[in-house]
Amino acid sequence: MRIDIAFISAPICRQPLRSASLEIGAIAEFEGIVRAQENGAHIEGLHYEAYEGMAKKVMRAIFEGLANEHPCDAVEFIHRLGWVPVGESSLYIRVQSKHRGPAFGFLQECINRMKKDAPIWKVNQNE
Amino acid sequence: MRIDIAFISAPICRQPLRSASLEIGAIAEFEGIVRAQENGAHIEGLHYEAYEGMAKKVMRAIFEGLANEHPCDAVEFIHRLGWVPVGESSLYIRVQSKHRGPAFGFLQECINRMKKDAPIWKVNQNE
Repeated sequence: MRIDIAFISAPICRQPLRSASLEIGAIAEFEGIVRAQENGAHIEGLHYEAYEGMAKKVMRAIFEGLANEHPCDAVEFIHRLGWVPVGESSLYIRVQSKHRGPAFGFLQECINRMKKDAPIWKVNQNE
Repeated sequence: MRIDIAFISAPICRQPLRSASLEIGAIAEFEGIVRAQENGAHIEGLHYEAYEGMAKKVMRAIFEGLANEHPCDAVEFIHRLGWVPVGESSLYIRVQSKHRGPAFGFLQECINRMKKDAPIWKVNQNE
């Protein structure tokens, strides 16, 4: 499986797709956007921080661990750090697989595990 | 919920996102690509046909029917018809929601129901 992981402090810009093979039949993507409400309060944005080196290792381990159950051919992961205004993306993930079942399974589960295990956190401007 | 449905006979071109609101926190997307193998045989592409007017009505009913269980704010659906070469997309769906759970639930289930109920079918060049 091809794995690309990036943490950036600029707006997320999707790259053109590099197809992993002619057997790819499904591309599933997720974009997480900062909402104008956080825990019921109005916010202008969120500040994201990470232990970047460790977060990359954790994300790679998550991706490799999911590959048996949800076989995929490529995953690209981009997380923005620093200040992210409302309406802009903090996270973008693209998964390529032969079939849509594994693509969706992998994508949803890697987000769940990221939130549980990766050293990435957010602070809103009211805190 | 904003619903856009299109059947086109040209390559699928994603449009820039028009955000449904500042409360959108999740965008989930799916692209279905023609694979070089179909039922074990090597193919050069697939030919898609649809009863277009009926297919639009069925897809709209599917989307409206899913909105209670998986609340979403916008769905865009593009299905290509006619000849689609291997490596090119036959289907693109983008869903906007406040949260990722409903976005993924809506997206996966609308594909399942499309395959079951919509008058869209494929023919490969060997048939």
